[in-house]
Amino acid sequence: MDLHILDHRLRVTSICKNGLVNFTHPLIKLIFLRKRTRCKFFSLTETPENFTVVLDEEGFKELQPSEHLQVEGSVWLPLNVISNGNASSSSQAVGVTKIAKSVIAPLAQQHVSVFMLSTYQTDFILVREKDLAVVIHTLEEEFNIYREVGGEYSAVLSQDVRNGFQKNGKEAPQPTVHPVLIPPNQFCVMSLDPDTLPAIATTLIDVLFYSSSPKEGALPSQDLDCIKFFSFSLIDGYVSLVMDTEAQRQFPADLLFTSSSGELWRMVRIGGQPLGFDECGIVAQISQPLADSDISAYYISTFSFDHALVPEEDIVSVTEMLQQHRKEPAC
Amino acid sequence: MDLHILDHRLRVTSICKNGLVNFTHPLIKLIFLRKRTRCKFFSLTETPENFTVVLDEEGFKELQPSEHLQVEGSVWLPLNVISNGNASSSSQAVGVTKIAKSVIAPLAQQHVSVFMLSTYQTDFILVREKDLAVVIHTLEEEFNIYREVGGEYSAVLSQDVRNGFQKNGKEAPQPTVHPVLIPPNQFCVMSLDPDTLPAIATTLIDVLFYSSSPKEGALPSQDLDCIKFFSFSLIDGYVSLVMDTEAQRQFPADLLFTSSSGELWRMVRIGGQPLGFDECGIVAQISQPLADSDISAYYISTFSFDHALVPEEDIVSVTEMLQQHRKEPAC
Repeated sequence: MDLHILDHRLRVTSICKNGLVNFTHPLIKLIFLRKRTRCKFFSLTETPENFTVVLDEEGFKELQPSEHLQVEGSVWLPLNVISNGNASSSSQAVGVTKIAKSVIAPLAQQHVSVFMLSTYQTDFILVREKDLAVVIHTLEEEFNIYREVGGEYSAVLSQDVRNGFQKNGKEAPQPTVHPVLIPPNQFCVMSLDPDTLPAIATTLIDVLFYSSSPKEGALPSQDLDCIKFFSFSLIDGYVSLVMDTEAQRQFPADLLFTSSSGELWRMVRIGGQPLGFDECGIVAQISQPLADSDISAYYISTFSFDHALVPEEDIVSVTEMLQQHRKEPAC
Repeated sequence: MDLHILDHRLRVTSICKNGLVNFTHPLIKLIFLRKRTRCKFFSLTETPENFTVVLDEEGFKELQPSEHLQVEGSVWLPLNVISNGNASSSSQAVGVTKIAKSVIAPLAQQHVSVFMLSTYQTDFILVREKDLAVVIHTLEEEFNIYREVGGEYSAVLSQDVRNGFQKNGKEAPQPTVHPVLIPPNQFCVMSLDPDTLPAIATTLIDVLFYSSSPKEGALPSQDLDCIKFFSFSLIDGYVSLVMDTEAQRQFPADLLFTSSSGELWRMVRIGGQPLGFDECGIVAQISQPLADSDISAYYISTFSFDHALVPEEDIVSVTEMLQQHRKEPAC
């Protein structure tokens, strides 16, 4: 398999809930007005805590420093696993499950923090730029590694980047087993033709920027246990949307599409307390047992918590698996 | 003819150019998300100086006080002349020309300041609430006057509102003759079905909120004498747009409509210095000679200057008329 180190230098930021009004202008530009910006990697995820915005340095320039904006200090690079067309795989699963053993587990063992961003199209594994040497050394046995520079890919060898390697210890860390929350919402992972983005603009703007204020005449949501989670990304021209079925009903049904109609996902939110960015092995903790059972999963990290999405029909077995895991937090 | 005093209490405000980013959130709500606001009267006009926003008190609540926001101190009420269907009129002209002699001139003579807002659908004559008694007394000979309250219209008689009358003097003021500017842009006055507003959302957002920043690869405007002027209004569910032909080209041609295809207008901007709100007779100065020549005109007041739009084919005679007027500032 091939591993691509993509040509985006990313920042991971968080806008607090009541600060969003101050960022409406740059965010609308980044989402809808591609001609006005050089940003090529943009992701916005609303959770109950805040808005996580991951974007490249061109996009980051659009965000004015503010008391409402938190910025993680590192530059992050997105990795992308390319399944070679002919490679036969015993697994039918998609998402992080496919890369759990080959990428996630080895990086966790090397104490490399990862920030995951699954989209409709693919799964981005974000690693800190300063960890790149360790990442390459760790993954080069399993992968042919290519680095994208200006649209061209060139092979990367470990000796090219040996500086900085060996800094991380070798022994596997004892991972914290974080509590998980499994809200009742059903989620969809969708895409649309970027040319039809204008057609959903007012709905998307409404959902992203105004959903916290009540609609005239609208009843408050009946289901208080549902979690607010909405993710939009526009990466290299591809749009991906993750939303629950209640939000989905607001969009025109003919424009958004899923890989197979009616595919619904349930969420496992990881972390009782905000997770921070330095702990390693959180993704591995969830993705390993899913991989063992060959259960598909999308995985979206945010500034405070991690979120795995698993097929609705597997949520009972995943719940049991995670309960078992908490009782016996082995290795 | 009937005169309606509409049930909107309006504020006239101005947002400075570099303060617009701070008002993107409330303005987008007021323009596109009607379900989220009780605002029923909203108008936004960009000029080279600023953004004039006229809106009712429900809309005004959305605008946070800021150093970037100037608010005229008065409450303004919109008047609307209803041409009774059967009344024969010798004039074929539309816009302020039709009301120049019956409304504009008498109010100017009574020292009543007016703020004009022509739209695709009609012409609103805004007067200060405190001037209402004078307005009614002045216009009741010519009009049956009705006041709208909660959607119902009831006849208004002068004795009902006699308080406050006679404060203004009787003699006609000597009007200042303001310099005028006639930029080369050609303007269109358009409307669209409010249900199709979402379809032009990204274009309208781009033009209104991002047009001052250069587009990637776009050439700077060739014609430096062209004036920036763009007006959007959403009043009682009706949309009106005034823009030049360069802005118009950015919109899909099939959604916006004009009263007759290809109708183009030229602008007469009134005022070398900002006009303020207290001088009377400015609209009268322009609309009287237009009425004498039966030339149609839209008229849009803004925070700093007034703007008359006249048919392209009449601009030469209007220019000569105004030059004549400056030489002999009679009456």
